Amino acid sequence: MKEGMLEFIKSRRSTRKYKPDQVPDEMLNEVIEAGRYAPSGGNNQTAHFLVFRDPEVLKTLAEMAEEEFAGMEVTEGMYKSLANSIQRAKLGGYVFHYNAPVLIAVANRADYSNNIADTSCCLENMMLMANALDLGSCWINQLKWLNENERITAYLRKLGLQEGERIYGAVSIGWPDTADGLPVREPLKRTGNEVTYI
Amino acid sequence: MKEGMLEFIKSRRSTRKYKPDQVPDEMLNEVIEAGRYAPSGGNNQTAHFLVFRDPEVLKTLAEMAEEEFAGMEVTEGMYKSLANSIQRAKLGGYVFHYNAPVLIAVANRADYSNNIADTSCCLENMMLMANALDLGSCWINQLKWLNENERITAYLRKLGLQEGERIYGAVSIGWPDTADGLPVREPLKRTGNEVTYI
Repeated sequence: MKEGMLEFIKSRRSTRKYKPDQVPDEMLNEVIEAGRYAPSGGNNQTAHFLVFRDPEVLKTLAEMAEEEFAGMEVTEGMYKSLANSIQRAKLGGYVFHYNAPVLIAVANRADYSNNIADTSCCLENMMLMANALDLGSCWINQLKWLNENERITAYLRKLGLQEGERIYGAVSIGWPDTADGLPVREPLKRTGNEVTYI
Repeated sequence: MKEGMLEFIKSRRSTRKYKPDQVPDEMLNEVIEAGRYAPSGGNNQTAHFLVFRDPEVLKTLAEMAEEEFAGMEVTEGMYKSLANSIQRAKLGGYVFHYNAPVLIAVANRADYSNNIADTSCCLENMMLMANALDLGSCWINQLKWLNENERITAYLRKLGLQEGERIYGAVSIGWPDTADGLPVREPLKRTGNEVTYI
């Protein structure tokens, strides 16, 4: 049905530097629809897509996250990426969403045991769809790590996060700031992700 | 880059009835490679793909899971699909992997905080790749629900599950038992998965 699908899947890479240009509505809607059509446990469909495009809101979110991370301490055995966020926040000028023009956070019910799994499928679909549109994307975990933070949760509630929901992942979307304007697509070598045949 | 990607993503549906025919190695390898090229937190690459094709092992796994679920009780507020598994196991003849010729379970480090997210992206990639090859697939959660069960864990350790690893999801793969032999591809309507623009 789809020639070249494996090569296409392998070509999805993370983009961490974006042009300031906004993503056209039509493209953004395709990315969101790809996320909405991810599978869900028992066809539950309780993912909630919070699409941040307002520059002021994105700035506020970045500043609040920086402040909250800066107040945390790195501990032994801490997840490496979280430790990096804390260290960079303490240095100042830390923008967790890479100044992408769009950040799509995916919330789900906190009392739903498939929340992280469903959310992750939504995010992977959106990253693949972005790649198909020549848009760059990057998985963003910071709002998940802060999803029990009262100050940020209160801010997000005002913006539409519902009672009982928490954010379980996010993705930045925008035009890659590369020489040719296209996402880097050279597959990153897999040295891990081992396979055992039984 | 990829025309028709959104329609393709929307066409991925769950297959719960399979023909007994085995999946050719080349196709199976493409499905697994699609999973291996999923993103991972901090490029961690600790997903471990356990590819079950041995009919005896698949039968044993189904029987063990049935016995373990049959010994559990449905509780108030329990995740609906887990409750269904328990109820069906108590009736007998319950085969959680739908008798698909292939079951790919994805394990990851239990002490790695992105384990479910990474695993889910692997599974979504594999389901999309299967669809591209006209193979049917279905997300399988039963081994995740039983991933602290000592008896099943001991059995899986003998088959290759490493110390410190647990299974966080699985997917069944095979030829759909439909009239035309193709997966059902009519998109399932999304009534949930709401979007809030900010």
